[in-house]
Amino acid sequence: MPAYKAPLRDMRFLIDEVFDFHGSYAANGAEDATPDTVSAILEEGAKFCEQVLAPLNRSGDEEGCHFNDGVVVTPKGFKEAFAQYAEGGWMGLASDPTYGGQGLPHSLGLVVGEMVGSANTSFGMYPGLTHGAMAAIAAHGTDEQKQAYLPLMTEGRWTGTMCLTESHCGTDLGIIKTRAVPNADGSYAISGTKIFISAGEHDMSENIVHLVLAKLPDAPAGTKGISLFIVPKFLPDASGEAGERNAVACGSIEHKMGIKASATCVINFDGAKGFLIGEPNKGLNCMFTMMNHARLGTGMQGLCSGEASFQGAIQYANERLQMRALTGVKFPEKPADPIIVHPDVRRMLLTMKAFNEGNRALAYFTAQLLDQIHSSDADKRKEAEDLLAFLTPICKSFMTDTGLEVTNLGMQIFGGHGYIREWGMEQLVRDCRIAPIYEGTNGIQALDLLGRKVLGSQGKLMLGFTKQVHKFCEANAQHPQLQHYVSQLAGLNRELGEITTRIGMAAMKNPDEVGAASVDYLMYCGYLVLGYFWLRMAVVAQGKLDEASDAAFYQSKLTTAEFYFARLLPRTAAHKAAIEAGSASLMKLTADQFAF
Amino acid sequence: MPAYKAPLRDMRFLIDEVFDFHGSYAANGAEDATPDTVSAILEEGAKFCEQVLAPLNRSGDEEGCHFNDGVVVTPKGFKEAFAQYAEGGWMGLASDPTYGGQGLPHSLGLVVGEMVGSANTSFGMYPGLTHGAMAAIAAHGTDEQKQAYLPLMTEGRWTGTMCLTESHCGTDLGIIKTRAVPNADGSYAISGTKIFISAGEHDMSENIVHLVLAKLPDAPAGTKGISLFIVPKFLPDASGEAGERNAVACGSIEHKMGIKASATCVINFDGAKGFLIGEPNKGLNCMFTMMNHARLGTGMQGLCSGEASFQGAIQYANERLQMRALTGVKFPEKPADPIIVHPDVRRMLLTMKAFNEGNRALAYFTAQLLDQIHSSDADKRKEAEDLLAFLTPICKSFMTDTGLEVTNLGMQIFGGHGYIREWGMEQLVRDCRIAPIYEGTNGIQALDLLGRKVLGSQGKLMLGFTKQVHKFCEANAQHPQLQHYVSQLAGLNRELGEITTRIGMAAMKNPDEVGAASVDYLMYCGYLVLGYFWLRMAVVAQGKLDEASDAAFYQSKLTTAEFYFARLLPRTAAHKAAIEAGSASLMKLTADQFAF
Repeated sequence: MPAYKAPLRDMRFLIDEVFDFHGSYAANGAEDATPDTVSAILEEGAKFCEQVLAPLNRSGDEEGCHFNDGVVVTPKGFKEAFAQYAEGGWMGLASDPTYGGQGLPHSLGLVVGEMVGSANTSFGMYPGLTHGAMAAIAAHGTDEQKQAYLPLMTEGRWTGTMCLTESHCGTDLGIIKTRAVPNADGSYAISGTKIFISAGEHDMSENIVHLVLAKLPDAPAGTKGISLFIVPKFLPDASGEAGERNAVACGSIEHKMGIKASATCVINFDGAKGFLIGEPNKGLNCMFTMMNHARLGTGMQGLCSGEASFQGAIQYANERLQMRALTGVKFPEKPADPIIVHPDVRRMLLTMKAFNEGNRALAYFTAQLLDQIHSSDADKRKEAEDLLAFLTPICKSFMTDTGLEVTNLGMQIFGGHGYIREWGMEQLVRDCRIAPIYEGTNGIQALDLLGRKVLGSQGKLMLGFTKQVHKFCEANAQHPQLQHYVSQLAGLNRELGEITTRIGMAAMKNPDEVGAASVDYLMYCGYLVLGYFWLRMAVVAQGKLDEASDAAFYQSKLTTAEFYFARLLPRTAAHKAAIEAGSASLMKLTADQFAF
Repeated sequence: MPAYKAPLRDMRFLIDEVFDFHGSYAANGAEDATPDTVSAILEEGAKFCEQVLAPLNRSGDEEGCHFNDGVVVTPKGFKEAFAQYAEGGWMGLASDPTYGGQGLPHSLGLVVGEMVGSANTSFGMYPGLTHGAMAAIAAHGTDEQKQAYLPLMTEGRWTGTMCLTESHCGTDLGIIKTRAVPNADGSYAISGTKIFISAGEHDMSENIVHLVLAKLPDAPAGTKGISLFIVPKFLPDASGEAGERNAVACGSIEHKMGIKASATCVINFDGAKGFLIGEPNKGLNCMFTMMNHARLGTGMQGLCSGEASFQGAIQYANERLQMRALTGVKFPEKPADPIIVHPDVRRMLLTMKAFNEGNRALAYFTAQLLDQIHSSDADKRKEAEDLLAFLTPICKSFMTDTGLEVTNLGMQIFGGHGYIREWGMEQLVRDCRIAPIYEGTNGIQALDLLGRKVLGSQGKLMLGFTKQVHKFCEANAQHPQLQHYVSQLAGLNRELGEITTRIGMAAMKNPDEVGAASVDYLMYCGYLVLGYFWLRMAVVAQGKLDEASDAAFYQSKLTTAEFYFARLLPRTAAHKAAIEAGSASLMKLTADQFAF
């Protein structure tokens, strides 16, 4: 397994130099997040992830979770690591101080989450799901509910889940079958079976708080008849501690391609006592308020696996001796040159680097927007919400699709050794492979982006972003070193507007045009968005190139930007062509004409 | 696991209607391969693969191979299936009748191989390696050696391996350390450790015949000092049967991402008795003569996994009910529409179909060329050899890269269920993932294509193919229905010539330009090559559209061709841009500037 080392220099480049987290923390009233605090958290987080979580990653994959008669045992060391995580206060880093959290900005939580996920994706699922459940309770719970659950979850003594999927529906939640029948005491009896429940059962916490989508007896059909319930594994007793066992049981765990140390459970609710959270029949809306967080979090898994893979690949490329450089022997004293001399190996490494660092910039920018939606300034809130609406599906899909490409490249650089489990490179591919699927498949994200967001707003939600790009391009149009890239980006930015208009026109006549274009549209947007962030990074790097102490870092940024603009950004041309092909060739075949 | 059904209709379309196997069998003197024989073999092969091999695919993955003190046990059922395979005469289908083979054309062997690999990739490795070893002995062995090994291998009583890789070298065989010291009796004492030896040890055959690359004591350095040896696990006794145990032992087996039922072994030679095959120091040349077969065979693994994945995905897309069609409810009596109504699901299915059927056409065409290199007509031989030189690295890389894309799409169509092992879709991704790596990584194939073949021949080896495309486009330039595609293909065909010339010019000044362009160049060629075969298939299908009994099949071909030209072929634009970016951004960073 490649040893993980948190890429603190690159993180600080974004936090301090590109996005000015400190300025926006100060402006948003996050006074506690001083530069010193941020720095300390980065260093402590790095230490914990490198020393505690990373060493459990391979063993967790090999050992997996074990299920026996309703009990799930996580791999050796996970329980202890989780206790350390909780004890270190990491669970409550960005949580409400009213309930024991540290109240630091969400963007800082995301940076720590990157380190956790890069060191050990499976481990990251447990706090990740708990954070989701906490956010739901914080946003929609009564004061009593918040008081009952949030402090214990913030402490990490209780963990949480999100129970949405059933065996016959994942995307199409309107047809769920789980039922909630009112009890005399105001609670509900929840009955049904949920599948794919991450952290649904395990041995790390004293109690598990399930957030469950179910239908009331009189609920309207479809998505407008879904309600959300808190269903704890153990009902809180009079003192607030885990008391009587609820009628919730883990029926089995899934055997998966990857994230094997993350328990993916079938959870049976057999008239379990549940408590309505939020309004009846508004359960899906409650979920939607957390969607931006959850989707960005899933997008991060693409970056996390990609970063871990890059670290393994770069080390191997420097150590593995094979063939001589095409331009002549570089290391005559060695039996062969290290493979990093070969242009094609560099192509793979730079593709990895360009996606990782670009995705990191996209994610950190988006995380800043998530901070901003709590701003007291309504205009700033609205601006952030609109940008988030556009960027979130891109984060989720583009970061996971490119993350998968990156982990596959990392494996490829290892040659045959990449296919062998002990090297750890193939695990990163397997762990990453779920990210384009769950939390809304990437296909669904693309429909959300193009159909619901962009066309649904008559283009407004796209314009918020493309205007920002436009302004940036205008401001840098004469940039002495980078104007070539500025004009490339400005051209694509204009083109996106044109493409969008054409799809919109076509979709008015035929709704299938949206589904026919959506995935290629999202990828086009993704490459453009990353182009924007690469250029922003390049402008900063170019301005600091004379800082002798760190010139190599800035030079590396500029070269990677050059690579991105020359080699990756032109992929937009293929996506444009696919978009413009329209739905015709997709819809002609009858279902039985696909195979003979 | 998706049930496998051999795609006989599509196979026959290529064999009978597009490439006229029968005509070329008759012309090449393969009189035994009558249409009736071919048909019987397809049907028997399909039956065996569907009924015997496919049911062992999931269990083989779950169980894997077991190693204990030098002994390798294959998963339950594999030994018996192999016995049936041997008994059925499948091992010797395309082998020399002098040694007990049936002497049928190699192209027919490839078609059967497709069925074997689609049903069970891991199983296919055992006969696959034996075929490789048989080909080496047949091409370079003495009559005595052929007599000693080929009949028993043809019977499937003995199997074979190819022992090339060592832990410190895979691509760079010039630095192997295994040594061969002459014995007094004319044999050699072989010492060294080989890794990644597929079928290196197992329980299926009475003896294992290793073909081993090693260095003689006085060998020149590098690739010109490598010799090839036959090193049987058991030395043949006086009666020709497996006799005394040789000093060959399996040290361990690898734990891999996939093809888990294929034993991948560390093989230790401890002064084992070996027999020189071919001339001293010409071992790598001996290997090269089999390279075309082996590389096409590896390319086939992309198609095999892709076909199996498509079969699973199409079934699931017809059965899984989720959401309603964007254009309105299609199945009001069901709780939701089957997902095949959704344009984006169709995009994925058609991408799978277009790559699979295009790759099958490419492979069958290439297999015909492999028949043709045994032609008595020297001109035909030369023509076939030149085309093979160009097409083989494309088969190996393009078919495996797109095969991996196809299997990933198949998994994606299953949503969360795709990630769960019992459905079998993720196994296909894992099994396929080795194919872009072994038998020369896809990066090495690309260097072979662009550097050694195309530029090494001053473009001649490319022109042999592009001229064929040019002629075809000229002949069909006025095609009433397809001329639009003809002109698209002709344009790209011209463009390839221009791109090649520009790379050639740049490479004269800077050899790194070859490595910088190679992978994108190969992919560009691959899309063009598939475009050519899709158009050939479309022309045939268009001509037969009036055959009422099979109109749906031909319509499906035409729609898939339309999809390919509209949606996939334009990816050449992105590869062209990457090629034209040159080596500049790749070579700037020093090794320590990749990460900070």
